[in-house]
Amino acid sequence: MMRSGFQRVARLAHHRALLRTHLLPRLHQASAFGSSTDSLVARFCPEKTDLKDYALPNSSWCPDMLSLYQEFLEKTKSGGWIKIPSFKSNREHIQGLKLPLGLVTDSDKQDWRIFTRCILLEGQGYEYVIFFHPSEKKSVCLFQPGPYLEGPPGFAHGGSLAAMMDETFSKTAYLAGEGLFTLSLNIRFKNLIPVGSLAVLDIQVEKIEDQKLYMSCIAQSRDKQTVYAKSSGVFLQLQLEEEPPQQQ
Amino acid sequence: MMRSGFQRVARLAHHRALLRTHLLPRLHQASAFGSSTDSLVARFCPEKTDLKDYALPNSSWCPDMLSLYQEFLEKTKSGGWIKIPSFKSNREHIQGLKLPLGLVTDSDKQDWRIFTRCILLEGQGYEYVIFFHPSEKKSVCLFQPGPYLEGPPGFAHGGSLAAMMDETFSKTAYLAGEGLFTLSLNIRFKNLIPVGSLAVLDIQVEKIEDQKLYMSCIAQSRDKQTVYAKSSGVFLQLQLEEEPPQQQ
Repeated sequence: MMRSGFQRVARLAHHRALLRTHLLPRLHQASAFGSSTDSLVARFCPEKTDLKDYALPNSSWCPDMLSLYQEFLEKTKSGGWIKIPSFKSNREHIQGLKLPLGLVTDSDKQDWRIFTRCILLEGQGYEYVIFFHPSEKKSVCLFQPGPYLEGPPGFAHGGSLAAMMDETFSKTAYLAGEGLFTLSLNIRFKNLIPVGSLAVLDIQVEKIEDQKLYMSCIAQSRDKQTVYAKSSGVFLQLQLEEEPPQQQ
Repeated sequence: MMRSGFQRVARLAHHRALLRTHLLPRLHQASAFGSSTDSLVARFCPEKTDLKDYALPNSSWCPDMLSLYQEFLEKTKSGGWIKIPSFKSNREHIQGLKLPLGLVTDSDKQDWRIFTRCILLEGQGYEYVIFFHPSEKKSVCLFQPGPYLEGPPGFAHGGSLAAMMDETFSKTAYLAGEGLFTLSLNIRFKNLIPVGSLAVLDIQVEKIEDQKLYMSCIAQSRDKQTVYAKSSGVFLQLQLEEEPPQQQ
């Protein structure tokens, strides 16, 4: 297993020198790279920002989505939950971080969008919000697929749920332990999600071992009577160093 | 295995009576439901249609994508390959077919889009074209992710590749044996796909057994020097009956 993990790391590292200088293959402890979850959350979820947060209620949200959102928002006041903001681009999420060599960081004239915010029309594409529980290393994603995410008539495309799972795994992996790159994603689909309805994704970090985070997810209706899909995901830990402070 | 398959079928069937009247659990032969691949292809790939085909070259296609497209187009003339058209909505693909009970078929005022055509701006989202080889039950998908499909800066989101794989599996499964619903999708990611570059997905139907199609996929650079991901998918076969001809 270890060897396989390192082989994979080696493969990743060979791609355009992407990860060359930032892999720390001798580290095996679960504590990632010294960044506490609190500091990761503080960096990732700025209290004040001019960036538009797309994970806020709008008129397209169905009553189930709205009321569960309010429930979790209450839990952010005392229950240990944190609402994760959602910006148009991942570049906005990782501002101030030093990326592994090879990742493009310069902002050019392209309109870059994180895939799950590719459609900005309210209600037409992805509507979602992620809440994270740092001490329990778990997340909940409220997901409402719009008509641009269709697969079978009237239902969400399986790939849209796969992407939503990958994105929620991704944010959870980073906040829970600097997990950065998806290594694997295994999904078993059970039932179709009707377009315009709420699916609740419960994500749990199962273990952190050999620089990898192992996570599980169940997507179901709010009343838990209908399971839409179950999945597991493995993410590779990588350190995103902070830029040194600018000289005044 | 058999039992597990039927349990899953049963679970699917219980969801909103979706599949109730169309499951044929006594059929196990690999020949699906009597529809030949030729008749499925003829239904699915109309030679004349007013519908816009989005799987055609545009100015955003990179040189690799354009030239490989031309290569495969040549192979459609003599090499047994077929170019699959790609309409804005799955509803357009399945016109004239009788869907399982519970699937919405009436066209309302919603702007329904198949997920992988959710972004209509050329070059910004999904650019792709699928070629299918009926007698060898295999497909090739040429996929060029745009800046709206970003994950890590400059690279495609893992979820966008997952969805592209699911969609290519889906079309292949239907044409090769009336495979309709994704049961599982397992992906191992190896390297990141740079935004704007070509990824070639090679899909093969491995076997058809117990009303299920088992498929594999490898996504790589055109020169096969970089493997982006490998995956497997299992789809459930379901019969889409043809509507009786309209009386004149």
